[in-house]
Amino acid sequence: MITLYGDLRSRAHRVAWMLKELEMPFEHVPTHFLDGSTRTPEYLRINPNGRVPALKDGDLVLFESLAINLYLARKYGGPLAPSDLREDALATQWTLWVLTEIEKPLLLTAANLFLFAEGERNAQEAEAMKRKLGRPFKVLDAHLREQPFLLGDRFTVADLNVSSVMTLVPLSGMTLDEWPALNAWLTQCLERPAAADWKPIRFRIPRPPTPLAMLESFV
Amino acid sequence: MITLYGDLRSRAHRVAWMLKELEMPFEHVPTHFLDGSTRTPEYLRINPNGRVPALKDGDLVLFESLAINLYLARKYGGPLAPSDLREDALATQWTLWVLTEIEKPLLLTAANLFLFAEGERNAQEAEAMKRKLGRPFKVLDAHLREQPFLLGDRFTVADLNVSSVMTLVPLSGMTLDEWPALNAWLTQCLERPAAADWKPIRFRIPRPPTPLAMLESFV
Repeated sequence: MITLYGDLRSRAHRVAWMLKELEMPFEHVPTHFLDGSTRTPEYLRINPNGRVPALKDGDLVLFESLAINLYLARKYGGPLAPSDLREDALATQWTLWVLTEIEKPLLLTAANLFLFAEGERNAQEAEAMKRKLGRPFKVLDAHLREQPFLLGDRFTVADLNVSSVMTLVPLSGMTLDEWPALNAWLTQCLERPAAADWKPIRFRIPRPPTPLAMLESFV
Repeated sequence: MITLYGDLRSRAHRVAWMLKELEMPFEHVPTHFLDGSTRTPEYLRINPNGRVPALKDGDLVLFESLAINLYLARKYGGPLAPSDLREDALATQWTLWVLTEIEKPLLLTAANLFLFAEGERNAQEAEAMKRKLGRPFKVLDAHLREQPFLLGDRFTVADLNVSSVMTLVPLSGMTLDEWPALNAWLTQCLERPAAADWKPIRFRIPRPPTPLAMLESFV
């Protein structure tokens, strides 16, 4: 039996997407990250990092949403799984790449477009982060001009992991018109029926009050 | 034939370490990241991100240092490789975890301890980042009190990946006395003969002049 911990307005939506693609039944424990539930002694025994999501599959307990998805694909994945070592290497590469290049600058862009309260948004910060994202977006767009999905002709865990980090693009109203292949691919991925849990994500984060606090929150 | 691109004072040292553990011969192209060599049209055909390292193994080209190491372990790994799906899941988990929790706060700590010029260091920033690192360091220490290595009784790619991101701890003179199991494990990993390329790493980065530029550099 598989158990997924984490409210679906958190990064847990990434894992719920994978489980739904695989049509795997799972128990859902909607531990929330804003009300202290991730810091209880009980939860810390499941994930000592005090974060969601976490996944239990028999006696294996995993944290890190995108690592969980790679595991689920490898173990149960059918067409979403890497078919050989080469595909596994590329799926792992793109998964690490989206964390390194996109996740945090995109979060700070989104913060300044809609996660911070209206009076707390800083247009210069949003612009600087969008400029930073231009580099990986261009890489992804060029790659997707050559082939419809990250590993070739079919949707795999690589597409799921990379696009699931990018839900903040449509949520924040950013446009990707400059990168048409990326834009079409992202829409296609995020419109898959199994993906829909990201759509109602709504939360606010308070703007950290000082430059030092900004670094503490976003680095 | 395997080719590794990247000066060993960059993240390429992580991959060189893996190749040396595996006793794999490789061609080394010491593309440097500070002199423009990673942005030439020739290099961008190898890694469109304009970063080092990159690895060529036959006709497979990979970027992202820690993904390259997981690939090398899976393909050529012997005792460093995950032995089954469970170990592979955990090696992937710890690899993503060190990127999410440790890499950037540690870089900003190190910047304020030795990578920025002396007059540009900010003790408050270093303290804030060390405070942030306290959380993942505690998780790692608790885990390593239970078992000598991340996956159990032997040194694997999980240990190599996590500890190779943490070379900035000894390089910047941080002490880990609060976390004795982590401290002993890190010393043991980084003292392996194959790891030695990190030791002569010396470079300076200029302090970005404004809070916005700090976010642009470190987020």
